[in-house]
Amino acid sequence: MAVNLIEPTHVHNIEGVRLATASAGIRYAGRDDVVLIEIAPQSNVAAVFTQNKFCAAPVILSVNHLKVCVPHYLIINAGNANAGTGQQGMNAAVATTKAVAEFTNVKPQQVLPFSTGVIGQVLDASKIETKLPALAENMSEDNWIPAAKAIMTTDTVSKAYSKKINIAGKDIAITGIAKGSGMIQPNMATMLSYVATDMEVPNKILQTLLTQSVSQSFNAITVDSDTSTNDACVLIATGKSQTSYETLTSEEQDQFKHALCWVMRMLAQAIVRDGEGATKFVTVCIEKASHLKQAKAVAYSVANSPLVKTALSASDPNWGRIMAAAGKCDDSDLQLSDASLSINGVSIMERGELTANYTEQAGKQAMQADEIEIKIQLNLGDVQHTVWTTDLTHEYVSINADYRS
Amino acid sequence: MAVNLIEPTHVHNIEGVRLATASAGIRYAGRDDVVLIEIAPQSNVAAVFTQNKFCAAPVILSVNHLKVCVPHYLIINAGNANAGTGQQGMNAAVATTKAVAEFTNVKPQQVLPFSTGVIGQVLDASKIETKLPALAENMSEDNWIPAAKAIMTTDTVSKAYSKKINIAGKDIAITGIAKGSGMIQPNMATMLSYVATDMEVPNKILQTLLTQSVSQSFNAITVDSDTSTNDACVLIATGKSQTSYETLTSEEQDQFKHALCWVMRMLAQAIVRDGEGATKFVTVCIEKASHLKQAKAVAYSVANSPLVKTALSASDPNWGRIMAAAGKCDDSDLQLSDASLSINGVSIMERGELTANYTEQAGKQAMQADEIEIKIQLNLGDVQHTVWTTDLTHEYVSINADYRS
Repeated sequence: MAVNLIEPTHVHNIEGVRLATASAGIRYAGRDDVVLIEIAPQSNVAAVFTQNKFCAAPVILSVNHLKVCVPHYLIINAGNANAGTGQQGMNAAVATTKAVAEFTNVKPQQVLPFSTGVIGQVLDASKIETKLPALAENMSEDNWIPAAKAIMTTDTVSKAYSKKINIAGKDIAITGIAKGSGMIQPNMATMLSYVATDMEVPNKILQTLLTQSVSQSFNAITVDSDTSTNDACVLIATGKSQTSYETLTSEEQDQFKHALCWVMRMLAQAIVRDGEGATKFVTVCIEKASHLKQAKAVAYSVANSPLVKTALSASDPNWGRIMAAAGKCDDSDLQLSDASLSINGVSIMERGELTANYTEQAGKQAMQADEIEIKIQLNLGDVQHTVWTTDLTHEYVSINADYRS
Repeated sequence: MAVNLIEPTHVHNIEGVRLATASAGIRYAGRDDVVLIEIAPQSNVAAVFTQNKFCAAPVILSVNHLKVCVPHYLIINAGNANAGTGQQGMNAAVATTKAVAEFTNVKPQQVLPFSTGVIGQVLDASKIETKLPALAENMSEDNWIPAAKAIMTTDTVSKAYSKKINIAGKDIAITGIAKGSGMIQPNMATMLSYVATDMEVPNKILQTLLTQSVSQSFNAITVDSDTSTNDACVLIATGKSQTSYETLTSEEQDQFKHALCWVMRMLAQAIVRDGEGATKFVTVCIEKASHLKQAKAVAYSVANSPLVKTALSASDPNWGRIMAAAGKCDDSDLQLSDASLSINGVSIMERGELTANYTEQAGKQAMQADEIEIKIQLNLGDVQHTVWTTDLTHEYVSINADYRS
């Protein structure tokens, strides 16, 4: 049921990043569910992780490893999140990284583990270990698309985006993959996403670029207001293009930042388009707020309101629910008596009064689209924030009442 | 589909409070939809209202009127919330109170208007005005049950509770009605609720008693995390029992407070039991938190999680979703590595580790019940908070994709 989302068929390779996939039978039969990513020496790697206080063992381990050195390998499995598994889960995560380290002849701290899938079951590390020879044999720069497929859980479409830009006379490539469909309201990170570029970027700047891009992509989406225990986003800069970010002009840096943000936003939006049960892709744009926290609060309040989301699924221009959701925000500066509201350009409310020529018919017609933009102007300041979300459908209930995730 | 909720058949009358209902055809045909409540002179009246910043015209007007004098009449309509209706809506609310005031020969400020139902349509005050003679003729202390029915919107069962207690040798009665089923996460108030007692209570103390009781009843429930534009809870003390709260001993005051809280909690829980599409009545009990804000945040985070609520609807002991929902709280003091979890007394997690003898079978059996208690001990302090909620079902989606509320 993904909304205007098609399977990716081609992305640019990133020199210095090789990937391999294998079928370890962790949960699924007849499909790959393990990915090994190899990062060339001299690369830099930045990452952000879920802020969920019940985060999974691999998240804790990856955070610790990243403090020690630059990772050489990322090992990812789908089907089991290895979350809520206590000491046994941590043992499994350690065993996985140790096995990869021994097989590839690196230090365990140079391996970051990632898991996604069912919460509460200890991961069987041996299933991954036995696949290491096959993974090693299979390594290729050409495997981004198979990797995007192998990390899927409830996703119905795999997610991969890529951009090539010419900066300072050289071609620079950025390629990323992501997975996610439910338990989506990233907080400082996202579901799993791996983005790489052949630009040369020092580690500290890379982390800043990642944080900035995440705030306008993965940290601006919600499907169901639930933040995952396993969210992580990794940004790799291999430097193989021999182009150094630091030597670029300010305009050229902006060009790179813009391209990076585009890839990450396309991935983030793809997660929403593939949101569990989604039939609408919804942009909630809050304008003229007095501060960013307010704009975000109102945006998420609308984007996560079950009453707004069910109205969206029925193509019902029930704008009262939208304004009620905006108004429930716990923000003492917020007042809505001067607010304006439009849906897909149809003005419904102007500065607190119903728009004179608004008709229910016009509202209904606007709501028929499968891409909906809800725009609220608070008229309290000049700050804006946009988040992307889905509707709430019967299919969402079916997926989550039937699927143990 | 209400969970273990039956129609009330009898409540105690409250001397000094008369009620009448009429069918004004505001939205519904063939049922009463307007209630007039008359409060005897010398009574005191306290009220709390929604904190939604997009609150309805009658809420704004009632708040203003209450500042001026003690109300003599409450006029309530169902079917139209008169919210989001700008100046026209305010005109309609003013016209309604003015009509009641003229008909009953009181000042307009002595009349409080309340509306519930569809948002965004201006109330036709004349429909209520024409029913005033019928309402006046119909006034009786015996009309609590018809009034409970007349204020219903998506409710499937009317809500009325009553208690008689003997204090200081005198019978004291407390009776209340409420409506609500969707757009339920009250913030400082609730959907509509009217509670009365014949105890004599000074106004300031009455307001404190109301606030305290609300915090443990209407402000501890959620169906869908959406706070209504029209929430209000009114507490009337007529003093007709000739028993003064102020002259009671501390134990007797506690006895009264306890009874008042019981009535309000039963009403609040009835709203949850009748929650839109509900098949489960769920108690989320957070224990051993370090502070109340934390306990509340974790409780609502679990109670409002769509993934927890869909698992509940499927009787799926998917405890990973519960802990993930707890962990997504934005509370820097929160850590869950030492937390314990049980469902209906079945221990699942003890201090961060899976309970040794826990089986999926035991979890499934516990989840079959239609009354579920989720208990999380944070083991961080000694504060506890309980909220009540529902599951999230296909029926919820159907109700809210079909019904314009």
